[in-house]
Amino acid sequence: MAAARQVNIAIIGAGGVGKCFLAQLEQLAQRRPNPKLVLCYISTSRKAVYSNEYSPIGLDIAVSALASSSQTPLALPSLAEYLSESDAKTVLIDNTSSQDVANAYPLFLSLGVSIVTPNKKAFSGSYKLWKDIFSASAQPGGGRVFHESSVGAGLPVISTLKDLVETGDEVTKIEGVFSGTMSFLFNSFAPTSGSGGKWSAEVKKAKELGYTEPDPRDDLNGLDVARKLTILARLAGLEVESPTSFPVQSLIPKELESVASGDEFLERLPEFDAQMEETKAAAEKEGKVVRFVGGIDVAAKQVKVGLEKFDRSHPIASLKGSDNIISFYTKRYGSNPLIIQGAGAGGDVTAMGVTSDLLKVLASL
Amino acid sequence: MAAARQVNIAIIGAGGVGKCFLAQLEQLAQRRPNPKLVLCYISTSRKAVYSNEYSPIGLDIAVSALASSSQTPLALPSLAEYLSESDAKTVLIDNTSSQDVANAYPLFLSLGVSIVTPNKKAFSGSYKLWKDIFSASAQPGGGRVFHESSVGAGLPVISTLKDLVETGDEVTKIEGVFSGTMSFLFNSFAPTSGSGGKWSAEVKKAKELGYTEPDPRDDLNGLDVARKLTILARLAGLEVESPTSFPVQSLIPKELESVASGDEFLERLPEFDAQMEETKAAAEKEGKVVRFVGGIDVAAKQVKVGLEKFDRSHPIASLKGSDNIISFYTKRYGSNPLIIQGAGAGGDVTAMGVTSDLLKVLASL
Repeated sequence: MAAARQVNIAIIGAGGVGKCFLAQLEQLAQRRPNPKLVLCYISTSRKAVYSNEYSPIGLDIAVSALASSSQTPLALPSLAEYLSESDAKTVLIDNTSSQDVANAYPLFLSLGVSIVTPNKKAFSGSYKLWKDIFSASAQPGGGRVFHESSVGAGLPVISTLKDLVETGDEVTKIEGVFSGTMSFLFNSFAPTSGSGGKWSAEVKKAKELGYTEPDPRDDLNGLDVARKLTILARLAGLEVESPTSFPVQSLIPKELESVASGDEFLERLPEFDAQMEETKAAAEKEGKVVRFVGGIDVAAKQVKVGLEKFDRSHPIASLKGSDNIISFYTKRYGSNPLIIQGAGAGGDVTAMGVTSDLLKVLASL
Repeated sequence: MAAARQVNIAIIGAGGVGKCFLAQLEQLAQRRPNPKLVLCYISTSRKAVYSNEYSPIGLDIAVSALASSSQTPLALPSLAEYLSESDAKTVLIDNTSSQDVANAYPLFLSLGVSIVTPNKKAFSGSYKLWKDIFSASAQPGGGRVFHESSVGAGLPVISTLKDLVETGDEVTKIEGVFSGTMSFLFNSFAPTSGSGGKWSAEVKKAKELGYTEPDPRDDLNGLDVARKLTILARLAGLEVESPTSFPVQSLIPKELESVASGDEFLERLPEFDAQMEETKAAAEKEGKVVRFVGGIDVAAKQVKVGLEKFDRSHPIASLKGSDNIISFYTKRYGSNPLIIQGAGAGGDVTAMGVTSDLLKVLASL
């Protein structure tokens, strides 16, 4: 039998998702000896581990090797050159949320390096970057690019939408709850039974449980959801210019937009509880509950993000915990949509989407 | 630029799914000129179209060419030889539900022919056949094999389960409604609001709407669901011997098992309405509704198929039309399962699963 082929893996980012991915990669390399997966580069924003000979870095000691390393990360153009000069095929795993790294994808892809990432920035930034990425990938010899975890973490959202489009179905509408944080907040604030807590108290609790960004305004401004909708709308064929080119409702009171810190924001948020209480009461009057959702009307070329009212029996209303739900309405599926539901955030499930994308790349190399 | 590579396509079966697939293949070939997809063989059980030179058969005229053809189908071993002797890579699309064709998969795969199919028989027959198929595929030079549409039609059920397992998650439980026919019957017979119709009347209506097999007993015996559970259980790691090696509840009254025809069965079914009415009433007494479900408990190595009671607010109870719903409970996803829901039957959505599998094979060739 022939010797196992080798595939080089480079990883940028070793935070929550990065560490979970390393653990999954270690398991994968043990279970599937062919192709041989060789970690040849790993970096955080300040440190790196690599050698001129692409020597394997032990997957079990990568994190501690990083901590004790005195090497600094290669500049992105140098990293692209370094990776593309190996004889082996190479996959870059971008586990950051960096716009800079995203901007370099076309360079990596044009040099034949494949990319797997949960980073939303590349696919929800300017429409020019989106086009540059996919045209670099489509060139002869271009690398492949997968980003399942950029929407709904490990849930099969991107792959399902691509399958629908590529097999010739006509997607007419996409709607759902796309943020684990928003899901948790509204499931607690406006539950389908019982009365729920005060808005500011729920935000504080979500932060304490680690369900929000360090500054909760980074969730409440709606931009995270807008980025995900931008990605799905583009996959469905709409040329969305940017995540700020359609209506996005922010849940940050105008008066608190410019306060200095997340802590000060949380301190003053109770002043605005009455506004959210009013919104909740208005929905209750109609027998409904309020939820923070995103929607894409493909025919009308409209994308929007914000609060909407739902019947208590609606699947969006009865969501639990921090689950996401995404409904695809298509010509083939008719009046009952294809629905995908489950945890849409968390290190392990996000890393799972990255690992399953890596398996797709490996199958194609 | 290099000339487009060529991939040969052979199709067995030109019924409901087969015709929908041909239409999708025609669209696909127009949209994606590379690789060039060449239909070189198509057959029904009695007729075939092919030539010694693998000449392209027009995708738009394949059905009419079949109708007017005087060629008979090649025997399966001859077909395998014929396909494997071409210089081009070849994909066999099995759009039948034939056990004979399924039995020949190991031969095709060992000769390097890839297989894409909605045919459940290959994956839910004997455990020996299952092992033979996947070991033939795993050989150096073996063909690839995909069968998304064998469970839930085009819904991403198989691919999601494979992703969970291959990325190292631990699947603990799978449950759901796996039959469009059973879904329709119970959503009408025991709706979450209102009283529903008589059992025999609902079965008759389902048959008239084309939702059942020609003889409705082929749905009501539970074997179709048992086959799907067998496939999922095996993918989750259980060595299920056959679809009859675990408890399967049949909804055919003993007295009607051996009546001669489906028509006679339907005529006599009203005699047994009282039994089903009793089952419905027993559930109603607990505020519940009855549904026909399948479940796999991976840890306990148990598979079962039959009637169960569900709260009216349970996602399985509130299913609509002939939708399927499949819940994956895993270690990573915790207490809230990963759920996939939507139409699980129909020519177009079944063909969609076949077409998306074909795209996966093409990406790997």
